[in-house]
Amino acid sequence: MKFVRFKKDGVRNTGILEDDSITELSCSMKKAIDAQSIGKFVLEKCTYDLKEVEILPPVSPTKVVCVGLNYVDHARELNMEIPEEPVIFIKPSTGVIGPLDSIIYPSSSKQVDYEAELALTISTKAHNIKKEDADQYIGGYTVLNDVTARDLQRKDGQWTRAKSFNTFCPIGPCIETRLDPADQQISLKLNGEVKQNSNTRNMIFSPQELVEFVSNIMTLHPGDIIATGTPPGVGPMNVGDTVEVEIENIGSLKNFVTK
Amino acid sequence: MKFVRFKKDGVRNTGILEDDSITELSCSMKKAIDAQSIGKFVLEKCTYDLKEVEILPPVSPTKVVCVGLNYVDHARELNMEIPEEPVIFIKPSTGVIGPLDSIIYPSSSKQVDYEAELALTISTKAHNIKKEDADQYIGGYTVLNDVTARDLQRKDGQWTRAKSFNTFCPIGPCIETRLDPADQQISLKLNGEVKQNSNTRNMIFSPQELVEFVSNIMTLHPGDIIATGTPPGVGPMNVGDTVEVEIENIGSLKNFVTK
Repeated sequence: MKFVRFKKDGVRNTGILEDDSITELSCSMKKAIDAQSIGKFVLEKCTYDLKEVEILPPVSPTKVVCVGLNYVDHARELNMEIPEEPVIFIKPSTGVIGPLDSIIYPSSSKQVDYEAELALTISTKAHNIKKEDADQYIGGYTVLNDVTARDLQRKDGQWTRAKSFNTFCPIGPCIETRLDPADQQISLKLNGEVKQNSNTRNMIFSPQELVEFVSNIMTLHPGDIIATGTPPGVGPMNVGDTVEVEIENIGSLKNFVTK
Repeated sequence: MKFVRFKKDGVRNTGILEDDSITELSCSMKKAIDAQSIGKFVLEKCTYDLKEVEILPPVSPTKVVCVGLNYVDHARELNMEIPEEPVIFIKPSTGVIGPLDSIIYPSSSKQVDYEAELALTISTKAHNIKKEDADQYIGGYTVLNDVTARDLQRKDGQWTRAKSFNTFCPIGPCIETRLDPADQQISLKLNGEVKQNSNTRNMIFSPQELVEFVSNIMTLHPGDIIATGTPPGVGPMNVGDTVEVEIENIGSLKNFVTK
């Protein structure tokens, strides 16, 4: 099931996405009470065409915890050894934007890169969770672009500044609650040209292992996100570019790069 | 003026700290209306002895942005050059604890260090602020201990895991709204023995410069914290230790290290 958050006529709502239509959740639940007498007519009024609404980021995380090198094919590309443990960093919640929003190119950087990633979202407050129990704390999966000012990342050594600019964390379009995260195609197109193309089976640490690792450091709150790392092929974007990350069985996250 | 948040008889309140007494803010304001007729008697009921209440963290930040090397004497101690720009990292809000709370030693680390720091807190949403205007966005100053699992910091290269454990961000006891941050003694005692002792005049980047630097990366929200780096003398703590950071004209932040 694909949960979305959207804005229609200035009002924020939660809905379920099926193909190109969204069924408003509170509406369909409210109307279901009346459905015995009024029936299908009312239910249709809760459903919008995708084109009629603005899709918002599907969750509002208090923090986005990201993982460095986590794809074997990316490690090979960089001639790096497979890490024993995940290396983490945090993107602040102020970086989060939704589908079709603009990634703003900061004046302090000369190289802003895309990084296609599968992200999981937390459904229940999680601390000291074992990987065997992790699925109980994962609400679902979404698509994330870990936008990175590569020149500042190299300069600082620490990754936080490079990853923390406003608009540097596009997520969406939906939370897919029923996904096998271990075998999904993940790809990225820049202006329609495929730049990254891999499969989540190439991950070093699984989403469940990442929930164990991160929740043994810090408490995770509902809506918090763990981004699971990027496959090979990262590269730069320029002002005017369109970037689109697609993950099989979740959907496509498209954004524009602007000044 | 020293703002504190405290709990009395299970209820959370905000107050003003003077010497060893706290005047409850909402109470004294409410009672002031009655004061014409009732007078001093009512006002005394709004004031508690410090020993009667539990002091809470003075703010609830959405994020704590910290700065690496920012004291010239610390740079000298480490034989490092003065940095051209601040290097930042983020501590998650889940690390925040208040005075007299316990710092929990994680089982994954064998060296947990103290780091005494002056912290500023944001009063008004801040983005792209110039240092000349920064004071308008700084609500005041507090004391912070940037607790760090030094062995994990060395192992990861990235600092986030080492700095992000729950309880690794003690702050308090108050927000001092009237402070000259450019000339205050800052010291740290471990079990009563002085381990760090410097003055904020040794800072490389001033609080105002840090507000400019950080707010040009990410939006800062009211209650958010920027920690301004630690002077020389950082070192390890052990279970059973008492650690106390003191900054002139703000106060003392004492915590205990437990399993």
